[in-house]
Amino acid sequence: MAKLYFYYSAMNAGKTTHLLQSSHNYRERGMQTLILSSSIDDRFGRGLVKSRIGIESPSIVFNQTEDIFALVNKQGPVDCVLVDEVQFLSKAQVYQLTEIVDKLNIPVLAYGLRTDFQGELFEGSQYLLAWADELRELKTICHTGKKATMVVRIDDEGKAIKSGAQIQIGGNERYVSVSRAEYKRIFHDEGSIKPSQISLPLDDI
Amino acid sequence: MAKLYFYYSAMNAGKTTHLLQSSHNYRERGMQTLILSSSIDDRFGRGLVKSRIGIESPSIVFNQTEDIFALVNKQGPVDCVLVDEVQFLSKAQVYQLTEIVDKLNIPVLAYGLRTDFQGELFEGSQYLLAWADELRELKTICHTGKKATMVVRIDDEGKAIKSGAQIQIGGNERYVSVSRAEYKRIFHDEGSIKPSQISLPLDDI
Amino acid sequence: MAKLYFYYSAMNAGKTTHLLQSSHNYRERGMQTLILSSSIDDRFGRGLVKSRIGIESPSIVFNQTEDIFALVNKQGPVDCVLVDEVQFLSKAQVYQLTEIVDKLNIPVLAYGLRTDFQGELFEGSQYLLAWADELRELKTICHTGKKATMVVRIDDEGKAIKSGAQIQIGGNERYVSVSRAEYKRIFHDEGSIKPSQISLPLDDI
Amino acid sequence: MAKLYFYYSAMNAGKTTHLLQSSHNYRERGMQTLILSSSIDDRFGRGLVKSRIGIESPSIVFNQTEDIFALVNKQGPVDCVLVDEVQFLSKAQVYQLTEIVDKLNIPVLAYGLRTDFQGELFEGSQYLLAWADELRELKTICHTGKKATMVVRIDDEGKAIKSGAQIQIGGNERYVSVSRAEYKRIFHDEGSIKPSQISLPLDDI
Repeated sequence: MAKLYFYYSAMNAGKTTHLLQSSHNYRERGMQTLILSSSIDDRFGRGLVKSRIGIESPSIVFNQTEDIFALVNKQGPVDCVLVDEVQFLSKAQVYQLTEIVDKLNIPVLAYGLRTDFQGELFEGSQYLLAWADELRELKTICHTGKKATMVVRIDDEGKAIKSGAQIQIGGNERYVSVSRAEYKRIFHDEGSIKPSQISLPLDDI
Repeated sequence: MAKLYFYYSAMNAGKTTHLLQSSHNYRERGMQTLILSSSIDDRFGRGLVKSRIGIESPSIVFNQTEDIFALVNKQGPVDCVLVDEVQFLSKAQVYQLTEIVDKLNIPVLAYGLRTDFQGELFEGSQYLLAWADELRELKTICHTGKKATMVVRIDDEGKAIKSGAQIQIGGNERYVSVSRAEYKRIFHDEGSIKPSQISLPLDDI
Repeated sequence: MAKLYFYYSAMNAGKTTHLLQSSHNYRERGMQTLILSSSIDDRFGRGLVKSRIGIESPSIVFNQTEDIFALVNKQGPVDCVLVDEVQFLSKAQVYQLTEIVDKLNIPVLAYGLRTDFQGELFEGSQYLLAWADELRELKTICHTGKKATMVVRIDDEGKAIKSGAQIQIGGNERYVSVSRAEYKRIFHDEGSIKPSQISLPLDDI
Repeated sequence: MAKLYFYYSAMNAGKTTHLLQSSHNYRERGMQTLILSSSIDDRFGRGLVKSRIGIESPSIVFNQTEDIFALVNKQGPVDCVLVDEVQFLSKAQVYQLTEIVDKLNIPVLAYGLRTDFQGELFEGSQYLLAWADELRELKTICHTGKKATMVVRIDDEGKAIKSGAQIQIGGNERYVSVSRAEYKRIFHDEGSIKPSQISLPLDDI
């Protein structure tokens, strides 16, 4: 009766904090958890899941070619699998998460972004939204006071970057979590966003 | 402060009943609602939203080329817009729903399926999962006793039909709402489902 | 792994419709359900659960001295128990609902009001809020456009009745579901509510 | 359009972590938050809200005689009020929280336990369950693998303490968050719980 949970949100909502707290709750009761983190580069091996609020935990980093079901299956008994940055998963890997639940009967808590800077679903998010047993939003706030549900990519002048790779590494771009109405103002209506409205520089995408 | 709600489910969960009850709640308090229904054929005009449990209401039927924002905007003041069968919406039409919320400040309640018989998102569902303010599941039950989250298309012998058009009209196919584990058993593992496990013939897809 | 669900709301949110739809979903898949309804008078036996939207089903009516666990246990196998008007349950009866879940492993869906006309919890609601596995709100709307979460009892002039028995049978009182802010305006600030803002006469409390 | 949220849970679910993360999200976008913590002793003044996972923040501590509405009102503009340990609030103080929302239009996030060691609602929890706009569960796990929703108070031998003050300070008692079925086994059926099943000593109640 295990389930696959997709905890989705815009950026900087506290996904990693929620992941670490959930793992902590299991471990405090003497249970075992496995913390995984998806990566877009070719890293594999030991990593670190880190929350901006100041807590962290060792993790296993894997990339888009890894078979996550096999990875979990060979770890020995575990009470809960927690996966960070699941927007980067391939369709096949999301299916593997469902197999961990359906075949091994281990609950899986998957944390990731819903949409990219153009308002499109990431591949991992698309299939988690399709197949997860429970969709749970982690809420955060837009500088306008509304709930932030979108992510906009902006340049040095606070104007929306409208094209480019879905996943951009390096560069001067910044990401800001905003409400859908504010997203439209910046992305479609040529508005801009002032530096003071921008959250801290982010390294996590 | 209006919101776009996506009420998603497998088939036969009671989406239309929920839609009609919500509309009823508004009207009972003297407010106006507008009931729309998406269609895959070229109908436009007066229609009927009908629940299997025995209640119904007149509706406006539109197809995938209609501008829903314009349609609502010219109706005059309305307190709530309710849309059935939203899995059939185009990406542009889901965007129009967000405009009804963001520009006209009218709440929109959108009801539809999450995935098709191959486990893929419908276009309308994909963009509602991406852009809706609130994702709300309407739950139903699988014959195995688990929650049903998937829809399988079966032939006369109860075996999964694995390919074909996403939207099939006519024919002898039946659709059954099942849990993800049961879906895998039928779709991937060549299992079958007995007639007694099949819900009533459905005309609503 | 069955659960006790408490579906709570203000009046006229569609509780009974939701109950009937859920029962229908089970029965459509060949499963058995048991529909119970709590009563404040001394009726026991066959009754009728009826939704204002126009659907109904036979039920078993019981009062506050009935042992619901024993009642369900002697019915033979059943896949789901649905109980209407649970605000009228005694503390002991809510405990019996938890026993149906924990000992018989049958899911229980309990539907009722949260608060009375003075803003106090009903006894049944109090213990369901304390012990249910899942608390689920059925939303409805206030004539002000906000979500209605409170129930106010008003006299012929639309002014709040502030004292009296929690459960009043007969009389000219009317109940109106309103937002908390509107409740305060009428109940605490001596406001009144016009007939046009009053929902239809209600017989269900 | 602000709302009163009641985030309820058993002990050790991560309430304070959620509170601190939510406050952090606001502050990161340049907004002001006010962190309050209810106390059962007569402390008033500067305090510290502290999560077991290792994060903390200064707070204002108040006791059951404080007028929270007045306290917040004289603080100057603030974008969000977060209150820890709300199970200790009086009925009047919960009403004051609703006034912060309804009169000052400031969102209030209230975090607390649902039930005490005898399965009864705390006064603060009772009125938050009655009046909050949104009830949100923070989930945690029982050593049996089920969701923990109850709190049991145990002695040195792991047996349930069945009577005593609702709020006990000092002593050798321990509190364990357990599922309702496990609670019944220990509290009603004279079972016991082994030290290895007990979570770490807790100082937060």
